[in-house]
Amino acid sequence: MKPKNFSYQLIDTDPCGARLGRITTPHGKIETPIFMPVGTSAAMKALTTQQVWDAGAQIILSNAYHLSNQPGPDLVEKHGGLHAFMAWDRPILTDSGGFQVFSLPGKKVDDEGVTFRYHKHGKQVRLTPELSIEIQNKLGADIIMAFDECVEYPTTHQYAKDSLKRTLAWLARCKKAHKRTDQALFGISQGAVYKDLRLEGVKALIDLDLPGYAIGGLSVGEGIDNMKKVLDFTAKELPDEKPRYVMGIGVPEDILEAVERGIDMMDCVIPTKYGRSATLFTHTGKMRVSNREFRNDKFPVDTNCQCYTCRNFSRSYLHHLFAANEILGATLTSLHNVHFYLQMMTDIRKAIKESRFLDFKKDFLDLYHRKDRKKKRK
Amino acid sequence: MKPKNFSYQLIDTDPCGARLGRITTPHGKIETPIFMPVGTSAAMKALTTQQVWDAGAQIILSNAYHLSNQPGPDLVEKHGGLHAFMAWDRPILTDSGGFQVFSLPGKKVDDEGVTFRYHKHGKQVRLTPELSIEIQNKLGADIIMAFDECVEYPTTHQYAKDSLKRTLAWLARCKKAHKRTDQALFGISQGAVYKDLRLEGVKALIDLDLPGYAIGGLSVGEGIDNMKKVLDFTAKELPDEKPRYVMGIGVPEDILEAVERGIDMMDCVIPTKYGRSATLFTHTGKMRVSNREFRNDKFPVDTNCQCYTCRNFSRSYLHHLFAANEILGATLTSLHNVHFYLQMMTDIRKAIKESRFLDFKKDFLDLYHRKDRKKKRK
Repeated sequence: MKPKNFSYQLIDTDPCGARLGRITTPHGKIETPIFMPVGTSAAMKALTTQQVWDAGAQIILSNAYHLSNQPGPDLVEKHGGLHAFMAWDRPILTDSGGFQVFSLPGKKVDDEGVTFRYHKHGKQVRLTPELSIEIQNKLGADIIMAFDECVEYPTTHQYAKDSLKRTLAWLARCKKAHKRTDQALFGISQGAVYKDLRLEGVKALIDLDLPGYAIGGLSVGEGIDNMKKVLDFTAKELPDEKPRYVMGIGVPEDILEAVERGIDMMDCVIPTKYGRSATLFTHTGKMRVSNREFRNDKFPVDTNCQCYTCRNFSRSYLHHLFAANEILGATLTSLHNVHFYLQMMTDIRKAIKESRFLDFKKDFLDLYHRKDRKKKRK
Repeated sequence: MKPKNFSYQLIDTDPCGARLGRITTPHGKIETPIFMPVGTSAAMKALTTQQVWDAGAQIILSNAYHLSNQPGPDLVEKHGGLHAFMAWDRPILTDSGGFQVFSLPGKKVDDEGVTFRYHKHGKQVRLTPELSIEIQNKLGADIIMAFDECVEYPTTHQYAKDSLKRTLAWLARCKKAHKRTDQALFGISQGAVYKDLRLEGVKALIDLDLPGYAIGGLSVGEGIDNMKKVLDFTAKELPDEKPRYVMGIGVPEDILEAVERGIDMMDCVIPTKYGRSATLFTHTGKMRVSNREFRNDKFPVDTNCQCYTCRNFSRSYLHHLFAANEILGATLTSLHNVHFYLQMMTDIRKAIKESRFLDFKKDFLDLYHRKDRKKKRK
């Protein structure tokens, strides 16, 4: 089934392979490369959708695994779908639950689906490709993901091969089960770190002619070098005319590597998760604002940043909020981090447009790691 | 010392005695009667100052007791005072710490001051009128409060009398210690529920010709009837040309009673505290949105409300946020409750202007308690 009102336009390609593009969805356009902040349970942690929008978000991600349990897909559907329920009238992507299920201890995989215990109430649940798609159809995101098996790292070639076969069979079932033309179903490349399996899988994905393709099974502990290798030999096999999404990535360094390899979309909980533990991203590296050294620091988190937090508050104030255990601390740090990521993506798009992505990457990383180098010298 | 750029203008008086007025401070004007949301530790719980402003706040309250410990008055002073530190360029009032200290178990009162253990780190601390004013001078709020003894309810006439004498002696010391002409020092009426003591105290307050007067020692368990009695015989003794503030009040019913008795200012943690436990104020009474009955409720919290929460989200979504333990739940409920209180104050001012406050009060309470009456009938 071809989705309606969904398309990808490749606008420009940097000499290194980084891509500038635009995705059109029923809820608006997305300039790529883009980072998607994660609102797991139909809510960004500690942020209103208005704050997420003000921070520059174009698309957010939510999760079928969590939402299938609370509040349940039927309730969300009755309330007009995720967009209306969470008051975000912009593009949304839902993950299928594959990644979450396969990270649970004690899950049982068979060719039909997976049986597991839900992490909150401990009840036994069965998830199949058909059920994941049914849930995502009810949630109503603009982009939905195939239900796949995400294997652990490390894994044997044999297990990865068997798993890939299952994932591809499941993908065909997902495609068949998918009922809504206003949602684009993306397929997911698996195959662990094995080149032959990745290539075999991508070939099968392309044969299905889906509106977009994701690279899954990364950010599972394989390390940045393995990640780069997998992206190197996988991304270049994907068709130019479809968006490419690397799932669960990552820290700023990972994002730059992915963009260099022609990736258009990324997502991660890091900006909000780190924010809640007082860790902030800045152009000169990370800082933990709860550290004693910031107690009396009058500067904003990042002097180059135009976010609400940096325009109004000092590091000292943020330090105080964490010391006083104020919820507002999590809000202001999450807001800054989301803004930092999205500003980085804006800068990345500008660099690609001007055909200087590798220079941008070098300058960004030089500044970002300067403090680390200074520390090493000491 | 006369404060500069501080004044009160009585605009209109309702036949019942409710007053419409305007307070001018160095950080802007306040239309009265007004409710002051409480940001104890230089932060509104779960709300940014921008959200507090958008909810209609004109003045917020912060607390010398908490701030004296974290981050400390010297740090706040170095950062340009509370206004700059917490990014609220509007009027602020700080409480002296009296109420907090006297609610601590094991505190020791003598004529010079109070010795107590700080509730967080347990270290012994000594607070005197001079020190409380010094702290508040450093914090830099537009209105600061005298350091008084707030006695428990019930208390004997003898204890209340001795305590009143001490509070008045402390007030004279506060006035002497106060060093900033851009801060208005308010005196506080004490005397428990005893009319003779309240009248004696108010007379002494007036003799000091302070820029404003508070009625303290209420909301300590005396009940609404005692509160009304104390307000009845205390408020009418206060001079017309100065603002009148009842401390720690309260639920909407209390606020209406206070306004009827000519009170101009009120504060309470209730809107944010109730919000964090999922309790919402509406024109038809309180609702606990975490209750099962709201799981599938598509209506906004209050169909008459124009706050961000009610304009965008359903009761069902708020129910979901509390079920999923999302911080955003506390933000959206607090935001609504603060807006509800401030909208009520706007409606109160309009009613006074139109000389129909008692009709307004009756209509408000009829609607507000309708559900309770329905329940009783069943």
